[in-house]
Amino acid sequence: MTKGISLGELVARLGGSLKGDPDIQLTGVGTLSTADEDALSFLANPHYRPQLASTRAGCVVLGADDADQSPVAAIVADDPYVYYARAAALIVPEPEVAPGVHPTAVIHATAHIDPTVWVGPHTVVGKNTKVAAGASIGPGSVLGDDVHIGAHTRLSANVTVLAGATLGARCLLHPGVVVGGDGFGIAWDGEAWIKVPQLGSVEIGDDVEIGANTAIDRGAIENTVIESGVKLDNLIQIGHNVRIGAHTVIAGCTGISGSTTIGPRCMIAGQVGIAGHLEIAGGTLITGKTLVSHSIREPGQFSGALPMDDSRKWRRNSARFRNLDELARRVALLERKSKDT
Amino acid sequence: MTKGISLGELVARLGGSLKGDPDIQLTGVGTLSTADEDALSFLANPHYRPQLASTRAGCVVLGADDADQSPVAAIVADDPYVYYARAAALIVPEPEVAPGVHPTAVIHATAHIDPTVWVGPHTVVGKNTKVAAGASIGPGSVLGDDVHIGAHTRLSANVTVLAGATLGARCLLHPGVVVGGDGFGIAWDGEAWIKVPQLGSVEIGDDVEIGANTAIDRGAIENTVIESGVKLDNLIQIGHNVRIGAHTVIAGCTGISGSTTIGPRCMIAGQVGIAGHLEIAGGTLITGKTLVSHSIREPGQFSGALPMDDSRKWRRNSARFRNLDELARRVALLERKSKDT
Amino acid sequence: MTKGISLGELVARLGGSLKGDPDIQLTGVGTLSTADEDALSFLANPHYRPQLASTRAGCVVLGADDADQSPVAAIVADDPYVYYARAAALIVPEPEVAPGVHPTAVIHATAHIDPTVWVGPHTVVGKNTKVAAGASIGPGSVLGDDVHIGAHTRLSANVTVLAGATLGARCLLHPGVVVGGDGFGIAWDGEAWIKVPQLGSVEIGDDVEIGANTAIDRGAIENTVIESGVKLDNLIQIGHNVRIGAHTVIAGCTGISGSTTIGPRCMIAGQVGIAGHLEIAGGTLITGKTLVSHSIREPGQFSGALPMDDSRKWRRNSARFRNLDELARRVALLERKSKDT
Repeated sequence: MTKGISLGELVARLGGSLKGDPDIQLTGVGTLSTADEDALSFLANPHYRPQLASTRAGCVVLGADDADQSPVAAIVADDPYVYYARAAALIVPEPEVAPGVHPTAVIHATAHIDPTVWVGPHTVVGKNTKVAAGASIGPGSVLGDDVHIGAHTRLSANVTVLAGATLGARCLLHPGVVVGGDGFGIAWDGEAWIKVPQLGSVEIGDDVEIGANTAIDRGAIENTVIESGVKLDNLIQIGHNVRIGAHTVIAGCTGISGSTTIGPRCMIAGQVGIAGHLEIAGGTLITGKTLVSHSIREPGQFSGALPMDDSRKWRRNSARFRNLDELARRVALLERKSKDT
Repeated sequence: MTKGISLGELVARLGGSLKGDPDIQLTGVGTLSTADEDALSFLANPHYRPQLASTRAGCVVLGADDADQSPVAAIVADDPYVYYARAAALIVPEPEVAPGVHPTAVIHATAHIDPTVWVGPHTVVGKNTKVAAGASIGPGSVLGDDVHIGAHTRLSANVTVLAGATLGARCLLHPGVVVGGDGFGIAWDGEAWIKVPQLGSVEIGDDVEIGANTAIDRGAIENTVIESGVKLDNLIQIGHNVRIGAHTVIAGCTGISGSTTIGPRCMIAGQVGIAGHLEIAGGTLITGKTLVSHSIREPGQFSGALPMDDSRKWRRNSARFRNLDELARRVALLERKSKDT
Repeated sequence: MTKGISLGELVARLGGSLKGDPDIQLTGVGTLSTADEDALSFLANPHYRPQLASTRAGCVVLGADDADQSPVAAIVADDPYVYYARAAALIVPEPEVAPGVHPTAVIHATAHIDPTVWVGPHTVVGKNTKVAAGASIGPGSVLGDDVHIGAHTRLSANVTVLAGATLGARCLLHPGVVVGGDGFGIAWDGEAWIKVPQLGSVEIGDDVEIGANTAIDRGAIENTVIESGVKLDNLIQIGHNVRIGAHTVIAGCTGISGSTTIGPRCMIAGQVGIAGHLEIAGGTLITGKTLVSHSIREPGQFSGALPMDDSRKWRRNSARFRNLDELARRVALLERKSKDT
């Protein structure tokens, strides 16, 4: 089915310097150890360098330093991983989606669906909702009222986007994503928690990817905002009125509490927890499982999780932790005594 | 579309003391800095007090101490945030749901749906399931057999409630919620894990809110129970046979293991992990990311996550943690020596 | 409805030694304290031994040591919990699923659905997808193209299995599960993150159970692999190209980053985070909330989360942690001084 592409065409379109026969046709991709002669492979992580000598790939994308070591055709690129990513998208293109609205789709009369859009089976599209050119609304997805889906944005399947949310162009939402659930706004009236109406919505920029089962809450008054180029992994929680700056990436299972603002180009690892009402400077790196309970005013790299240990050793150390303050006082006392002698 | 409400009517219905023209009409809400003259704002968090002087809101809800500082009409209330919550629900009411069963809904002949209920497109309602007055079953939702949905309870969209679960009145379930998936019950038979049938169900009280993609497992033998007034944020895991007491609130990404009982009016922050078979006293506060591995018999506030630090400094400290027990022994030895001299 | 089973038949089918009337009929199960005379109960956890004397169960499954203490009929078994699990499945069998394809199911003409399969309402089955004998595809579930569902595998409801994924026999997927969402593969091109096409798929063995809202990403080039007998709880994140060995069990909210290989028969608790590109030896135990940032070459038990404490005490100790490296240096200095004297 895949027609493939020749090395010559690849280099013509993506640049790089070809060492090998431009007529070699590629129809797939593979790792150095498993790629066959129809497949493109790459060497970006030095960890895999030992596999280069024995690769049977049709071509390997690699850096200048490795250029002479390839036993097969090679493309020398400044950043082999970026080059591979672009090449793979040409060699194995996304399946094209044929425009059309499935007869089982339930679309409000006032919705505006561009004729180039695909709307899959068992979908629902609300009042005044607009879906722009080339977008696709996968099976089982639900769009509320007054939603805007930008051009070429794709909702995979069983995605929910609730009232008033706007998504930019070329976004990709994986299954189970929820955009626009209510924020967690409650107030204690002395007898019970009463709900604070969540009247803002969600604004998502262009080129945003959102992983499976990630939830982005609507704002309480103003909007929750995800700027362009943000990449969110699976099972992430984004609270109400959070703002995430352009090109920030966040790994799986991370939670961000309400009203926190995260600057652009941050890299936040998995299972990180960020408290509410904080500001995180653009360019900040946060390692896995860190609890962020204060604002970060200057970018840097921050950590907060202890490395695991053998459980028995761990228990001895963590028991001592419970008395660390006392231990520090004892050391201070020893120091005073030592000074006196 | 929104008709709005006058300040006079607001105070007539909710109390509070009005300083300003009772004929001012409000049609929306806003923050102090962004509200326009048709909008209600509020001042509850002292952090925002500096914004009061320049607000252009139609009216500000505030406490007695700030009453004289508002440049616009004001309502003085004992708890401005609670007042705002109630007022916002009057000014911007929930869109009314027109009763009716969408023609694409698949409803078992033995189900009983009150005529005032809305059943949305692409829903499924099982055998003997009952949906009480004023409830709404949003698009893509699936109700198993023998489910009971209480009056005015709303399932947003793509919600799943499996066999035998009961929900009280005025609950609100956000998209992707799963009620009644099997608990994680397995037994090792020497060769493989075999499944322990999960034969209990889930009982949910009145006025319970459940956030997007939260999962509540059915009990193994008896039921998992969520008492009235409980508020659960997004992406929470509730294990089988857990019981959560009335008016307890739990923030996002928290996980509660099987057979743990949590008392009423607890406040549990995000990413907390509570082990199984524990008892947590009513009124307990647990801060973010804490691991709770023992029962809490007396209410109090508990913590268990270290504050982040610059990664380099963090690594030095956490390397020392691996030898904390030894460090404590060395200090004890120094103390003995110091005594001897 | 349930016809029940006699003690005689139970023992004939499952073994064990019966002390009591073989004609007693059981129609349900219960805990020691709540079971009635039609119900089977069991005593496996010594914690519940005090409840044995007053049980009114029809029969209790217990170990040889407790055999003489039961006030009612008893079955003595080597492993009472395993015996109970098997017996419960006989006494309260899974509701049988009548074969058939619901008229609202949207099934591609090239799909092959075995005539013994149940395909529920509002489901979607893609091109060339195969569903083997006795499987069931619950309401709202979506199967992409080229999916393979093994014999007697059950998808509960609102499950999504995307293109190319294969599931073995007798698997059980709970609501909201996503199999085959894209892995989190991105490359920074100097201006923006570009997507690395995720061209592998997901291979799942036999007898795998996957909890509600758990997400398993497709591989980048090769497949993500879940071997037979693996049991995954709710809200787990499995990154691309992860391999999980046979009979490994993982509790809720755990996240496993890309390209990590976990051996067979591991037990991984809840909220554990495992970094990418690691190897975890078969038989490893990891306790709750541990961060695993290095490979584990030899099986053992590993921990990494501190026990909670009263918040005030916690703050004092954690403040000291920020200077632990300095404290250790001060102790070393004291030791040198002490040696000198």
